[in-house]
Amino acid sequence: MSKLAYLGPEGTFCEAALRELAPEAERLPCANVRAALDAVRNGEADGAVVPLENSLEGGIAQTLDEFAWGKPLLIVAELLLPVEFSLLARPGTEMRQIKRIFTHPAAHTQCRDFIDREIPGAVVVHASSTAGAAQEIANPESPYDAAIGPAIAGEIYDLTELASDIGDRNDTVTRFVRVAPPGELPEPTGADRSSMVAFLRDDHAGALLEMLSEFSVRGVNLTRIESRPTGDGIGSYFFHFDCEGHIAEARVGEAISGLHRISGDLRFLGSYPRADKVPTQIKRGTADPDFAEAAGWLGRMRAGAVQR
Amino acid sequence: MSKLAYLGPEGTFCEAALRELAPEAERLPCANVRAALDAVRNGEADGAVVPLENSLEGGIAQTLDEFAWGKPLLIVAELLLPVEFSLLARPGTEMRQIKRIFTHPAAHTQCRDFIDREIPGAVVVHASSTAGAAQEIANPESPYDAAIGPAIAGEIYDLTELASDIGDRNDTVTRFVRVAPPGELPEPTGADRSSMVAFLRDDHAGALLEMLSEFSVRGVNLTRIESRPTGDGIGSYFFHFDCEGHIAEARVGEAISGLHRISGDLRFLGSYPRADKVPTQIKRGTADPDFAEAAGWLGRMRAGAVQR
Amino acid sequence: MSKLAYLGPEGTFCEAALRELAPEAERLPCANVRAALDAVRNGEADGAVVPLENSLEGGIAQTLDEFAWGKPLLIVAELLLPVEFSLLARPGTEMRQIKRIFTHPAAHTQCRDFIDREIPGAVVVHASSTAGAAQEIANPESPYDAAIGPAIAGEIYDLTELASDIGDRNDTVTRFVRVAPPGELPEPTGADRSSMVAFLRDDHAGALLEMLSEFSVRGVNLTRIESRPTGDGIGSYFFHFDCEGHIAEARVGEAISGLHRISGDLRFLGSYPRADKVPTQIKRGTADPDFAEAAGWLGRMRAGAVQR
Amino acid sequence: MSKLAYLGPEGTFCEAALRELAPEAERLPCANVRAALDAVRNGEADGAVVPLENSLEGGIAQTLDEFAWGKPLLIVAELLLPVEFSLLARPGTEMRQIKRIFTHPAAHTQCRDFIDREIPGAVVVHASSTAGAAQEIANPESPYDAAIGPAIAGEIYDLTELASDIGDRNDTVTRFVRVAPPGELPEPTGADRSSMVAFLRDDHAGALLEMLSEFSVRGVNLTRIESRPTGDGIGSYFFHFDCEGHIAEARVGEAISGLHRISGDLRFLGSYPRADKVPTQIKRGTADPDFAEAAGWLGRMRAGAVQR
Repeated sequence: MSKLAYLGPEGTFCEAALRELAPEAERLPCANVRAALDAVRNGEADGAVVPLENSLEGGIAQTLDEFAWGKPLLIVAELLLPVEFSLLARPGTEMRQIKRIFTHPAAHTQCRDFIDREIPGAVVVHASSTAGAAQEIANPESPYDAAIGPAIAGEIYDLTELASDIGDRNDTVTRFVRVAPPGELPEPTGADRSSMVAFLRDDHAGALLEMLSEFSVRGVNLTRIESRPTGDGIGSYFFHFDCEGHIAEARVGEAISGLHRISGDLRFLGSYPRADKVPTQIKRGTADPDFAEAAGWLGRMRAGAVQR
Repeated sequence: MSKLAYLGPEGTFCEAALRELAPEAERLPCANVRAALDAVRNGEADGAVVPLENSLEGGIAQTLDEFAWGKPLLIVAELLLPVEFSLLARPGTEMRQIKRIFTHPAAHTQCRDFIDREIPGAVVVHASSTAGAAQEIANPESPYDAAIGPAIAGEIYDLTELASDIGDRNDTVTRFVRVAPPGELPEPTGADRSSMVAFLRDDHAGALLEMLSEFSVRGVNLTRIESRPTGDGIGSYFFHFDCEGHIAEARVGEAISGLHRISGDLRFLGSYPRADKVPTQIKRGTADPDFAEAAGWLGRMRAGAVQR
Repeated sequence: MSKLAYLGPEGTFCEAALRELAPEAERLPCANVRAALDAVRNGEADGAVVPLENSLEGGIAQTLDEFAWGKPLLIVAELLLPVEFSLLARPGTEMRQIKRIFTHPAAHTQCRDFIDREIPGAVVVHASSTAGAAQEIANPESPYDAAIGPAIAGEIYDLTELASDIGDRNDTVTRFVRVAPPGELPEPTGADRSSMVAFLRDDHAGALLEMLSEFSVRGVNLTRIESRPTGDGIGSYFFHFDCEGHIAEARVGEAISGLHRISGDLRFLGSYPRADKVPTQIKRGTADPDFAEAAGWLGRMRAGAVQR
Repeated sequence: MSKLAYLGPEGTFCEAALRELAPEAERLPCANVRAALDAVRNGEADGAVVPLENSLEGGIAQTLDEFAWGKPLLIVAELLLPVEFSLLARPGTEMRQIKRIFTHPAAHTQCRDFIDREIPGAVVVHASSTAGAAQEIANPESPYDAAIGPAIAGEIYDLTELASDIGDRNDTVTRFVRVAPPGELPEPTGADRSSMVAFLRDDHAGALLEMLSEFSVRGVNLTRIESRPTGDGIGSYFFHFDCEGHIAEARVGEAISGLHRISGDLRFLGSYPRADKVPTQIKRGTADPDFAEAAGWLGRMRAGAVQR
């Protein structure tokens, strides 16, 4: 039985994601994304589940930067999890008594309208996770009156759910990924996604256009582009790319190795089945048999073979 | 005398930026970026200074999203401010007594090595701003022992500076922008930058490549590209662009209006002098006189004039 | 009544084209394309009809080069004329007597199969035009036995048509254009074509890609690209372009003036109704109202107007 | 000893080219380009030398079309030959007696100024080759008084050279290629050129841009692009491309096989040393070792290897 680290404590959305991705796995809650990934890196866990991006908040910077700078790991699966927030308090607390709310900044942002409407005077203090906030509230000596977090956190910490589904939008989704130590990639399924991080050799104008061309010329669609600062001053960025397809496929492999050639540094993060199972639309002339045929043809041309 | 709102409380890096950008201005500290911008929108302030990006942390999501979704404002100036962190505590506190540190997550990230090395057992709790953390520490009943923040915050809240310049890197810079209500743009200086937000009409593969081509074909260099989720589900993004030059220049104006045509929605955020004063390198055939000459030529061709 | 020069002598396909384009016009046969165009340039004729390209032979080099180097003229109309060849001989000549055929090289190429099959031993000598060949055959002292040319040439020179429609392909078409002195352009019809000649400022790799991008970024489709040597050594070319649309249209005008900016020299040859009357498909965001809207928006942005 | 066919008769520039390319070879003059190439195809000759383009006249259509449509052959060498024309007549003829000139149309074009100036009243009749014209003049019963052609033709046919170097430009160059039956390619030299013919699968707008991108994305420079009609109606073209480099090189091979994938049909015409011996400038990241490194890297990534 495998053991998977995740962004804890118990009761986070991340735990819910882990339960869905690997119901049988032993779960190892960690204080933050780095700790969860380090648990895999040092062999304490067989893998980890961490959030990568949120449909409202965007990329999770800590995860993006860990993938770029930390010891390499492989993404082997992804999951899209709807995010529903509840207002959680110690039993006996009533709505009108809530003066100080403890929650993660993302949850704060997503529940702003609810707070403004229902608890207008409340002060919101930021916690490092929604489950951590719930845990804090469970402490009777906490200076906070309520947490905003997933319903499951309320159950785990014996809190009362004063209100449910309080997010300003009810279609918020978080994308979680399961990572593993470097090793065999998941098999191509025809509905895959590949992730990578590209550093520019020299940060010239047009470098991004060149990188995108490596994909477009092989008919590979990008599904996510995220710039992150390299730390070397304003104006210096590196890029996270997600593209359709599996690196085992010829067009994806050629595009990624083209990007590798022109980049100063390219880190491959993995190829894995898409959560939405949408099959890759393959542009004419870019399917694996097309590449195989072209490679055979090229070999014959190089050998001076007779053409029809 | 003008009155400028900023991300408070007193003692933030943002205040330092404001003092540099407008030493004479009256200062109005606000609880967060939205509040500072709203002060301009509702006429309470004549302008505002807010952080836009950090060389280590990347774009400031709240600022980016306010610029994209909130009532429009104009960026009229920018400033690059080196960021130096100090460890701040109530007078009498000694280093070895520090168990709980309160600070903003970005400061936490940037001082991680110092903390691991000097105060290895400390728990770090996240505040909504570094100045707010200093303010909290100033309260003798605070559950926290020290804050990490700018030296100026220590002075304002009468804290002792236990250590200075404790960031893991000493070249961290934050880019602040000064915004104003819509109105006259700053004059072109030859070393300008323009900012905008582009929403895609339809999120097809290749849309980003098309947008970049609007710039490259007119010889306009991009200096920042940042994707942000639209909120309409994973995989749906809009983009912040910074480019070289001023919208009053022909090539920039044509590129931006080209982007406007192909985008579902384009919001222009302003043209303003670059903080680094680096003059725009103009590619042959794309200077204003080239555009003027070409427009005259086009007019003559449309009128069927004789060519040489 | 207008007087139009054409590639004579009487009986050429070019005369047929002229009759179709301008049935009422007085016709002035000229010895070659240059002479026909010169007749317009020096006021001897009000216009001219000359062949531009043939679906089998390609661009007519003399016309292309005259348009590029000679005194500028405007293309005001085009016509596609099916080309049908006949074998023409003096009355009394029989097929088996034909030993020497006189015709234009293009006609030779297009009737090669017929000749190989029907008159296998015949020697083919090249004339400067098919009608000129017919005229020569009419001379009883001609060393040639038959001409290949249009049926009309046989009628004019009182020759017998020994075989008709002898081309190897029966779908050969020649595109003729009517040119006029510089002056008012034909009105846009929604199904127009524009022609131009572009010289490169510096013949760097990628220059053609840049030129094509000027069209593609404005959604303008090219319908013909022809490279011609500049005469300055092998490897130095200039380009003829035909694109869809009329220079009076915003996207076409911007593309052509963009090309003008980046080219060392651009000569506009005219905008005129397409012979096939196929209306231009306009890509979203590139219609005239889109450009007008964007120009208005740009003006407002430059003036610092309030955006929604 | 090899036997090479060429565009005859004896005395053509093509013979001069052959003598330079292969001084030892036995020479087989042929009536036209097709015949010379057919001699190779049917084994009568071991190779052939034919003109491909002229710096003044452009591509030699018959050669281009033979390469595209005829039974495939390989280009194995190229030569740039300066073209100098002489006015040739039967001994005893004087300049003032010349009324009818016989020559190839290209020579006519290139000597137009001389003729207008020195023999203004002369009628020029078109021959199928300049050497053929000289041969004709040698016949005392010829209706023509002089030929324009290479000096060597005058020597061969015992004609008098009335004037030499009479071309309007003295830097005209013709590019000749030596072709061989399919077989081993010439070794890469670092200063090579590759030629090919591409037919479009579907003639959509943007198809040429796509083809050029296959080269540019791999850093391969094109040195010649020539469109030719497919014969399927006006507006339907195929393309001749020459690019820098040898198909044995990785970037060239990948570009050409990419073009093969997206084209309906691609015919490879050969890789051979450049006549001008200019070494290929290789863009960073596109040299053979870069491709080899990237291929190795790709293999490791596909196998899930540990990255640094």
